[in-house]
Amino acid sequence: MFIRYFDHAATTAVKEEVLKEMLPYFSLNYGNASSIYSLGRSSKKAIDNARVQVAEALHCHPREVYFTSGGSESDNIALKGLAFANRNKGNHIITTKIEHPAILNTCKTLEKEGFVVTYLNVDENGFININELKNSITDKTILISVMFANNEIGTIQPIKEIGKIAKLKNIYFHTDAVQAVGNVKINVEGMGIDLLSLSAHKFYGPKGVGALYVKEGINFNKIQDGGHQEKDKRAGTENVAGIVGLGKAIELAYKNLDMYNEKLTNLRNYYISQVEERIAEVKLNGDKKNRLPGNANISFKGIERRRIIIKLRCKGNMCI
Amino acid sequence: MFIRYFDHAATTAVKEEVLKEMLPYFSLNYGNASSIYSLGRSSKKAIDNARVQVAEALHCHPREVYFTSGGSESDNIALKGLAFANRNKGNHIITTKIEHPAILNTCKTLEKEGFVVTYLNVDENGFININELKNSITDKTILISVMFANNEIGTIQPIKEIGKIAKLKNIYFHTDAVQAVGNVKINVEGMGIDLLSLSAHKFYGPKGVGALYVKEGINFNKIQDGGHQEKDKRAGTENVAGIVGLGKAIELAYKNLDMYNEKLTNLRNYYISQVEERIAEVKLNGDKKNRLPGNANISFKGIERRRIIIKLRCKGNMCI
Repeated sequence: MFIRYFDHAATTAVKEEVLKEMLPYFSLNYGNASSIYSLGRSSKKAIDNARVQVAEALHCHPREVYFTSGGSESDNIALKGLAFANRNKGNHIITTKIEHPAILNTCKTLEKEGFVVTYLNVDENGFININELKNSITDKTILISVMFANNEIGTIQPIKEIGKIAKLKNIYFHTDAVQAVGNVKINVEGMGIDLLSLSAHKFYGPKGVGALYVKEGINFNKIQDGGHQEKDKRAGTENVAGIVGLGKAIELAYKNLDMYNEKLTNLRNYYISQVEERIAEVKLNGDKKNRLPGNANISFKGIERRRIIIKLRCKGNMCI
Repeated sequence: MFIRYFDHAATTAVKEEVLKEMLPYFSLNYGNASSIYSLGRSSKKAIDNARVQVAEALHCHPREVYFTSGGSESDNIALKGLAFANRNKGNHIITTKIEHPAILNTCKTLEKEGFVVTYLNVDENGFININELKNSITDKTILISVMFANNEIGTIQPIKEIGKIAKLKNIYFHTDAVQAVGNVKINVEGMGIDLLSLSAHKFYGPKGVGALYVKEGINFNKIQDGGHQEKDKRAGTENVAGIVGLGKAIELAYKNLDMYNEKLTNLRNYYISQVEERIAEVKLNGDKKNRLPGNANISFKGIERRRIIIKLRCKGNMCI
């Protein structure tokens, strides 16, 4: 039986070209990027290069890119770092009910620290209501955090519109773009994004490495204390190989994005239409048009999710 | 010219056998350890195996091992996680003046949060004074954090003695063992250690991955919010390849430790004696006996550290 992997929203395999770039940084160019001799400088150079690769993908300046250990850490730094640094300006944060736990649980922690969080509703296609967002803003609002694209149903939010509102009201706008980066074109400047989280393993890079974009001039607190790495914003010896992998993966993802996405969108639409045609009483969740090219999320009437997984697992007498 | 790397306290190269173990987890067994299908289960199994490898090295139970993104994160979780979880018991922490910045700067943050920190002095060989430690303890003391071995001068603290005092006074004992793990035998149970930080890239494992040992039954707060990974104590998709590398590296480090350390200690002593014999007015920093096998820290009279590095860098007309 031929097995295909259909869970690229959970994680992806590291691409061959990405791993090839990473390999020398394990055992050959293994210097600590903080060391001033050549082996250390070579690691620093590799990190600088990855920073440029990320900046080119997001359309920002390399000095606005901070490397982290992944999407969850990026989300934690973005929300906590910004909230605590701007406590004097206000204590109100707006987010949505459908964020990833890295956002929702960070908000729960912030609530315990005296912050007030508004969780926006979404409509049947997964979109926030722009008027509800506008009406939620108070003079205490310091941050809007709305995910770029949902990890379950794939709905892509009206990011540019949110960015405009945030700018108009002088509120910072963060987006958890962990599911979007590598799959959707992003222009932080053009979209009015102030902070953005991404994770390498969602776009054929390695696990355990991510990045946070923070627009120059925006102050945020350090969450992990220690050395002065990442412009004194994230302590800890840099994961050089991982960062190199992230850089290469993001470069590759945006190289042929249009062509790749056209193919993927066609495949996705074909899959959805076939399911709708062949199985009775199914429902596509999320928006038909504004969704991630590779996302299909379907409910099947009268059967639990777990049962489907178990049945699929043993399909063709082969437990996968 | 033949160049030798002499900065293994900063970082080490990933061993060939370690990289070999890691490789399948990038592009072949790339599952998300939280996924319930076989590809995910294979990742979870690999992580479980690494947890056993760490537990065997430290002489603890695998469920007492939490994987992190490195030594700095482990230190941050240990101190902040324990302090915030035990705030009702007291607000006093004891550490030393010669800790790594990951400890010292975390203590600074805790001071801003209302904790009181005592920084113990060290003598001319780098040892803390046990009586000073005893006298520093108050009924508000909740944590003693003393590094296992110093990252600069290599002095190994009387860990077992500190552990005894902590246990007697019912105070938690954390040790930043980032420089010690892989170089010195460790028995957390026998040494009375309640929490211990380690980092893979210090013992021929990859950068960007570490672990924290926390004795069963000790409560500590989560620092990074999000998913339920690491028994709900550290959110974020697991760095499977990195964790596999850490596991293999720690296993290898303790396989032939005695033999390796005997050789290393002899080499170190020969190096020190040759420097002392050939160069006038040098001073060995740290203790002669209770120091890391691979550590030599020497002051040269009348020349700045920077000048030595620049001179060495261009030695033999080859800038390294």
